[in-house]
Amino acid sequence: MKKVVTFGEMMLRLKPQENERIIQANQFSALYGGSEANVAVSLALFGDQAQFVSKVPAHAVGEAAIGTLRRYGVDTSQILQGGPRLGIYFFEKGASVRNTSVVYDRAGSSFALSQADEYDWNRILADADYFYFSGITPAISSETTQAILAACQYCVENQVKVVCDLNYRGKMWTTTQAQVTMDKLMPYVDICLANDEDFEASLGIKAFDGDMSRGIEQKADFIAGMKKIIEKYPNVQTVASVLRNIKSVEDSQWMGLMINHDQVYDTPVYPIHVWEGVAAGDAFGAGLMHGIINNFDPQKQLDFAIAASVLKLTISGDLNLVNESEVLAVMNKQNGMRVMR
Amino acid sequence: MKKVVTFGEMMLRLKPQENERIIQANQFSALYGGSEANVAVSLALFGDQAQFVSKVPAHAVGEAAIGTLRRYGVDTSQILQGGPRLGIYFFEKGASVRNTSVVYDRAGSSFALSQADEYDWNRILADADYFYFSGITPAISSETTQAILAACQYCVENQVKVVCDLNYRGKMWTTTQAQVTMDKLMPYVDICLANDEDFEASLGIKAFDGDMSRGIEQKADFIAGMKKIIEKYPNVQTVASVLRNIKSVEDSQWMGLMINHDQVYDTPVYPIHVWEGVAAGDAFGAGLMHGIINNFDPQKQLDFAIAASVLKLTISGDLNLVNESEVLAVMNKQNGMRVMR
Amino acid sequence: MKKVVTFGEMMLRLKPQENERIIQANQFSALYGGSEANVAVSLALFGDQAQFVSKVPAHAVGEAAIGTLRRYGVDTSQILQGGPRLGIYFFEKGASVRNTSVVYDRAGSSFALSQADEYDWNRILADADYFYFSGITPAISSETTQAILAACQYCVENQVKVVCDLNYRGKMWTTTQAQVTMDKLMPYVDICLANDEDFEASLGIKAFDGDMSRGIEQKADFIAGMKKIIEKYPNVQTVASVLRNIKSVEDSQWMGLMINHDQVYDTPVYPIHVWEGVAAGDAFGAGLMHGIINNFDPQKQLDFAIAASVLKLTISGDLNLVNESEVLAVMNKQNGMRVMR
Amino acid sequence: MKKVVTFGEMMLRLKPQENERIIQANQFSALYGGSEANVAVSLALFGDQAQFVSKVPAHAVGEAAIGTLRRYGVDTSQILQGGPRLGIYFFEKGASVRNTSVVYDRAGSSFALSQADEYDWNRILADADYFYFSGITPAISSETTQAILAACQYCVENQVKVVCDLNYRGKMWTTTQAQVTMDKLMPYVDICLANDEDFEASLGIKAFDGDMSRGIEQKADFIAGMKKIIEKYPNVQTVASVLRNIKSVEDSQWMGLMINHDQVYDTPVYPIHVWEGVAAGDAFGAGLMHGIINNFDPQKQLDFAIAASVLKLTISGDLNLVNESEVLAVMNKQNGMRVMR
Amino acid sequence: MKKVVTFGEMMLRLKPQENERIIQANQFSALYGGSEANVAVSLALFGDQAQFVSKVPAHAVGEAAIGTLRRYGVDTSQILQGGPRLGIYFFEKGASVRNTSVVYDRAGSSFALSQADEYDWNRILADADYFYFSGITPAISSETTQAILAACQYCVENQVKVVCDLNYRGKMWTTTQAQVTMDKLMPYVDICLANDEDFEASLGIKAFDGDMSRGIEQKADFIAGMKKIIEKYPNVQTVASVLRNIKSVEDSQWMGLMINHDQVYDTPVYPIHVWEGVAAGDAFGAGLMHGIINNFDPQKQLDFAIAASVLKLTISGDLNLVNESEVLAVMNKQNGMRVMR
Amino acid sequence: MKKVVTFGEMMLRLKPQENERIIQANQFSALYGGSEANVAVSLALFGDQAQFVSKVPAHAVGEAAIGTLRRYGVDTSQILQGGPRLGIYFFEKGASVRNTSVVYDRAGSSFALSQADEYDWNRILADADYFYFSGITPAISSETTQAILAACQYCVENQVKVVCDLNYRGKMWTTTQAQVTMDKLMPYVDICLANDEDFEASLGIKAFDGDMSRGIEQKADFIAGMKKIIEKYPNVQTVASVLRNIKSVEDSQWMGLMINHDQVYDTPVYPIHVWEGVAAGDAFGAGLMHGIINNFDPQKQLDFAIAASVLKLTISGDLNLVNESEVLAVMNKQNGMRVMR
Repeated sequence: MKKVVTFGEMMLRLKPQENERIIQANQFSALYGGSEANVAVSLALFGDQAQFVSKVPAHAVGEAAIGTLRRYGVDTSQILQGGPRLGIYFFEKGASVRNTSVVYDRAGSSFALSQADEYDWNRILADADYFYFSGITPAISSETTQAILAACQYCVENQVKVVCDLNYRGKMWTTTQAQVTMDKLMPYVDICLANDEDFEASLGIKAFDGDMSRGIEQKADFIAGMKKIIEKYPNVQTVASVLRNIKSVEDSQWMGLMINHDQVYDTPVYPIHVWEGVAAGDAFGAGLMHGIINNFDPQKQLDFAIAASVLKLTISGDLNLVNESEVLAVMNKQNGMRVMR
Repeated sequence: MKKVVTFGEMMLRLKPQENERIIQANQFSALYGGSEANVAVSLALFGDQAQFVSKVPAHAVGEAAIGTLRRYGVDTSQILQGGPRLGIYFFEKGASVRNTSVVYDRAGSSFALSQADEYDWNRILADADYFYFSGITPAISSETTQAILAACQYCVENQVKVVCDLNYRGKMWTTTQAQVTMDKLMPYVDICLANDEDFEASLGIKAFDGDMSRGIEQKADFIAGMKKIIEKYPNVQTVASVLRNIKSVEDSQWMGLMINHDQVYDTPVYPIHVWEGVAAGDAFGAGLMHGIINNFDPQKQLDFAIAASVLKLTISGDLNLVNESEVLAVMNKQNGMRVMR
Repeated sequence: MKKVVTFGEMMLRLKPQENERIIQANQFSALYGGSEANVAVSLALFGDQAQFVSKVPAHAVGEAAIGTLRRYGVDTSQILQGGPRLGIYFFEKGASVRNTSVVYDRAGSSFALSQADEYDWNRILADADYFYFSGITPAISSETTQAILAACQYCVENQVKVVCDLNYRGKMWTTTQAQVTMDKLMPYVDICLANDEDFEASLGIKAFDGDMSRGIEQKADFIAGMKKIIEKYPNVQTVASVLRNIKSVEDSQWMGLMINHDQVYDTPVYPIHVWEGVAAGDAFGAGLMHGIINNFDPQKQLDFAIAASVLKLTISGDLNLVNESEVLAVMNKQNGMRVMR
Repeated sequence: MKKVVTFGEMMLRLKPQENERIIQANQFSALYGGSEANVAVSLALFGDQAQFVSKVPAHAVGEAAIGTLRRYGVDTSQILQGGPRLGIYFFEKGASVRNTSVVYDRAGSSFALSQADEYDWNRILADADYFYFSGITPAISSETTQAILAACQYCVENQVKVVCDLNYRGKMWTTTQAQVTMDKLMPYVDICLANDEDFEASLGIKAFDGDMSRGIEQKADFIAGMKKIIEKYPNVQTVASVLRNIKSVEDSQWMGLMINHDQVYDTPVYPIHVWEGVAAGDAFGAGLMHGIINNFDPQKQLDFAIAASVLKLTISGDLNLVNESEVLAVMNKQNGMRVMR
Repeated sequence: MKKVVTFGEMMLRLKPQENERIIQANQFSALYGGSEANVAVSLALFGDQAQFVSKVPAHAVGEAAIGTLRRYGVDTSQILQGGPRLGIYFFEKGASVRNTSVVYDRAGSSFALSQADEYDWNRILADADYFYFSGITPAISSETTQAILAACQYCVENQVKVVCDLNYRGKMWTTTQAQVTMDKLMPYVDICLANDEDFEASLGIKAFDGDMSRGIEQKADFIAGMKKIIEKYPNVQTVASVLRNIKSVEDSQWMGLMINHDQVYDTPVYPIHVWEGVAAGDAFGAGLMHGIINNFDPQKQLDFAIAASVLKLTISGDLNLVNESEVLAVMNKQNGMRVMR
Repeated sequence: MKKVVTFGEMMLRLKPQENERIIQANQFSALYGGSEANVAVSLALFGDQAQFVSKVPAHAVGEAAIGTLRRYGVDTSQILQGGPRLGIYFFEKGASVRNTSVVYDRAGSSFALSQADEYDWNRILADADYFYFSGITPAISSETTQAILAACQYCVENQVKVVCDLNYRGKMWTTTQAQVTMDKLMPYVDICLANDEDFEASLGIKAFDGDMSRGIEQKADFIAGMKKIIEKYPNVQTVASVLRNIKSVEDSQWMGLMINHDQVYDTPVYPIHVWEGVAAGDAFGAGLMHGIINNFDPQKQLDFAIAASVLKLTISGDLNLVNESEVLAVMNKQNGMRVMR
């Protein structure tokens, strides 16, 4: 079985209950997640071999984070334990015209303070087939950026494919910082995921006008943007993206788009009633990787990825708690929208 | 006051909280219900005389099931107590493209293991006017099928009307098994409820093409199917059905349809935002029975039934916790959709 | 900073959890609110100086009510403590075709039994700029009506502006009673809020045909009604209103409308997915007052008010827990409907 | 089967969760109870025939109260529905040196405002064997006192035995008021329950020095007090009491004491770890009545009553949710204090 | 690292919240456990290599059971998936004089219906050092008994040590059945855990008079019983036991006792305030095994085991969620009973 | 009214529910507190004028912290808003032999990063009578230490009394660091609170042998220690302390001890059943300050302080949510340990 190693930060997510705002909350649901951890969990639930690499504190909160990954089948044996704290984010679900919002409390985490040389890639990637990171990881520190570079170096030398979800976070770094850093990493990337503003913010390539209410209408621009990525970084064989028309916090439409070895693929548009609009990009990435690992043809890779992604929008928490057959059912419209009994 | 006796299995329903999946849940809401019990509760809340007959274990879980029925005014004096266990079902509410799903854990229940001769119909039905069962009950065991046959025998001889909701369950028996059994029971039935695939699965009569997203458009086929039922079983005086266009887990349209003494009735189409898409068929049956018992004219019977049914879609749990005036308000569009204060 | 004093009753609100009906509930969320208290809290959260005047019992439940106001920055120093009880209302959130409903349990409250002369307006209003009450307060008792009259007298003599939200409550008094009382109070009012049936029920002025599903279409009639108010009570300089098309418990459209010194203003129509359809009128009033206090131009006053109001529909509880920048973001469509991170 | 009719008020009990104080609570557990309702429920759970008579409002909260009784098997057919509200009490569980405390909000309830002649005792008591009330009921209003007198009149004339639990409540009336009223009622009483300060507060008979930490040590004084009751009201055949040494909110010792036809009975002393120190007196009363109804000998009556009472101290809510075999197990020390499995 | 393989049934445990009884509960905490699974989890948390072998259904509930084990580090790769259901038990925590009680609903489970030959011991035990089962497993079915016998056979032939916790369950089989079966298994056992009535019920050896309130006082009898076990089954090198004085559900005293190669060891007596009195025997077993695996001397093995066991009594659920240093702190009385900060 | 200004850090406290461990928790209760904030809240609830000074982040979590203080009447007008984060601590309640434990996550908080010169003591302390800090504040950073020194300087020059609770925290600094720093601060202190190891850890004065199970027995040593403090820092007029015998997490005995102007005072010993063993030292400090502010005689000051302190042990959260009359009731043994009704 092919093995995917993902590398990034894991955080404790605290969410008020029953649509409350943080300011009024006196209970928080506690879940653990993080972009690359989410990808690893989703792959493990699809039956693939997934390992997550990170650093978490050596106390009960760190243990709980690791326990979450283990629970869903992720290999956690290479996670470092130590350092001061686990990053936290407070998640406040929006409604209607009120945006979902996040209060980050991730500074000074064990991962952010970890040193590049703590990660022994020779050992970690020894039997890996894919190395996966998102743009969040290099945004955290120069050490984590160095760690990625070292990993990529190993990958190039050892035929491990590199996957990068650009995943720009405006609260973490500027576009200039992102572009300088990503320009160093992109030459190693085989598969690139780019959504919405990522093209411009992370790579300086214009592909989207910023209006989330009509992303699907800009499909041609996205295709052009994808082609520019491949032009600039010819090592990139695949660029994939989710296009979205977001009407309100609850209502949106999603479509997958991909260029794979110069061929363009897209998917039907899914109208969606959103439960939690987070981590669907990670679900898309995991879905795509599952298709690639299991030798789906490119169209099926993309169909599977977008179906996985829209399923995530119905799930509580950062983790896409669905198995392969559930994704296939959505993808093949086998769900008659009834209670199965 | 006319009395309705319903006969079937009652179960413990375990539901994760706040949209969680079973795999991640560590809390379950515990409610008790079951098709025929739901009908009895709804009738009792409408102010009718309703009795439920079944068998539940003689321990705290069985007591809790009985207590639920008593709480809402159902006569539980003829429920047998004994046997090993109460059936359970895990209920996972879906969202958007993710189906609501059910994990049944009902094998080996006290009811499933009960013997036909444990039910003394002479006593139970002594002052009954209607005997109500659904297709779930004969699907449970040959003994429960025998029990229904014995009850029907009594009904025929004592002018008790028999009501059957076909309620086909594909996880419980095959269509062949269902058709063989239902063919023995239908000759006793005065009032028949048939929804969606029930026509074909339970009776072998084609009326619906299986596409839940466009049931209302198939009204003519449903009418034809209803007529075939009456043709085949001339004892049937009434056939009623809910027609549905299901867009997603949350959004659907519902309409009532009925043939009563050869006259066709239908209702306006209700657009609905669904909270829990379960037990609305039972609510429809109870609504119809309430109209019949209280001598509503057939159009009002059907209007009341469909209004009761769409109200159920807004309620947590299997029981339609609404009273008669609330159903009438929906039926008469008296609700201005505002907070009443 | 300008200071607003609001006067009215505060209540304990008990709400079943997770969409349950009162009849099945065994847990209630406990929140505290009341029309004029809600206005005070919203103003305080906008950074304005707001004081609430009322009477609550001198026990733990009364303390909790006061604590809620203090928590969000309202001056509670003039709230009287004593009397038998805090009014309660049971709040049952509706869904789809099932109306949200309220069971009032407010009779005999400390506020309802308070005497007009317990309120020392000379002291209370000494540094006030605005005095705000809703039609609920005079509906409670003749003593509270007398208290308002005494306050208005003070206002007239001391250049304090009077604001009245007509807020008719059919469960509290008849239209005849309301009209007789309001006719005594209106001559003191500078700013009048009137919604839906308030025009006719409180003032005997026809402006709305009662069909909540098409309020926006009746804009011309509302304008005519507003003009009649100003004609009848020339002291009124501003009349503002929310027009609504309510499709179901979850779905509606809202628009603001105002006459200010003979000029008519309106706002774009907001389509809304409603979380809790209560206290949005209070949020509108607070939004308008915030604009007035801070010298927004009239169009911006109304735009801010309606944006505040639609935000309230996304919040749990009676209090509009949003700050000024959040309202401005909605008003200026700055929300890209994405998670901000 | 002998039938017991109990008469009194039922209330909604609101309790903060997880040991919170009312002032900090934003969730309340909602349960329904009341002294005489508690007795009826306990008897029904013991398998006896019990009916509760009262008046509750005709809305969802009143329905929920009735539903609670029905759930546990009490006959609710004679409960009147109407009037303004259900009484409420806020229950704050203490701990260690902090007393459990109650905020009453019971004024103006449907029961308190009910008229004596609304209760048709000829019909209500037609097949009753025992009529049970506590001193709370006459404390509520002169009308409820009149209702009791009318019921007692019926009882005397129809060989229905009268049971009175003195149950003095200092927050409801003065000792003078209590003594005047109880002196009118005692001549009808066959069985009298008197605890702690009841002797003096309700009847003016000194039996207890008020020190709850050493009630058991005052056994001789209690016996003397009991004898004085019988002397003064020779119609009383039985006086029963619980003697308590209360060390802290959690820790106490309980013992039963009874004079029955001049014979003194007592029980072993039970050391108890208290979960909720309420309604144990009602549980004692129900336990005694169960023994009497089922012809236990007097010693067994008392043993059963005290065992029922100490079991209640381990239960959440006002209702003693135990069956006969569970009481017998405690009484016979059959519980090996292990998990039964 | 030494590896322990445990074999048995895993169940879903449903527990009412906040001390409620099953009859009143409408929420259950859902946890997963089972005697041998508990041992495996405890060992994994101590840092040992532990594998659990069983059969669970291939649906979401079965997945959740497996996920629980993985979360805490147990190797689940040899768990079979299939069959109808996961066993369930309803757990009702007692208080004071009210026993903790359990309603079993375990009949017909996937494990109970599994066949002996489904377990391929050659593969499962290939790198095992210890094979651990409790008396519950052979009580489930003759097939599970056969499976144990096959495993023991393998152990004997491959120098894998066999550990048996007698763990008699009176609700599962009679003492006669137990003795016949255990007599076949004991000849394979190297390490035997025997508590309370196990001696007599499982082996017919009298060691305890059945009075749980004075187990510690019977130390001499327990030693005698242990010696008889070794006499009868000379393959047994170690017999260990927990001696208990149980005062009430909350209060008890615990002491460890062991014969190891003819030497008797005991421990100090721990007075304990019990949170949940379940699975402490499994915690004892895991503690002992941890000591054995890590070459603690026998006295330290027993000290560690009893400290682990009393820690379990403070934990929610069946799993002893403590690590080695926490046990050592209790064992060495390093806990000053203060908040560590 | 005398005014007390307290200065320190406020944190978010996250606590698992129902006795769960952090490692298994998926819900946290969220409360806000901190040693000096707790003192301010307690004083405000006693009716005193209390102000809290600190720095919290300018986002929703910081707002919630401030809101908590305002809710209970503390003046928050001088709290600075800005910086990166609010400190957090995970609170895991122990049981029996398992210690309550805390995972601190307070590094890098807005308060820890605040600069000494951000606090304008001339303004803040303009109308203060007492300045209160604990040893936690100087342990946080050299800047906070400087801020205290600046405040103390102001106090000395302006007749503001300085109160210091030594409150040594071994997880925050070494005893050497503490002693060096405290030695600079003590010369300003008028009233000193010192508990358990504080004497030695903070001041290098031996008064306690470290055995928490027998603190009360060491009363003479504590008195000697107190005298040494006064000897070394003659500006200190009052030294007060809580002496404890801690038997287990739940059970302990507490006693107050004080030297006030050379006179020794003590209190009765309170046996306590502990609900939450945190922040009782803060409650003691607030109780003492309340007595001092309100001119209680020294014996009553100490009696009130210890009664406040033992009440805190029964409360959820860091805040001592009791009023003056509740403390007096405990102090005067007016509580008969019964439900007050």
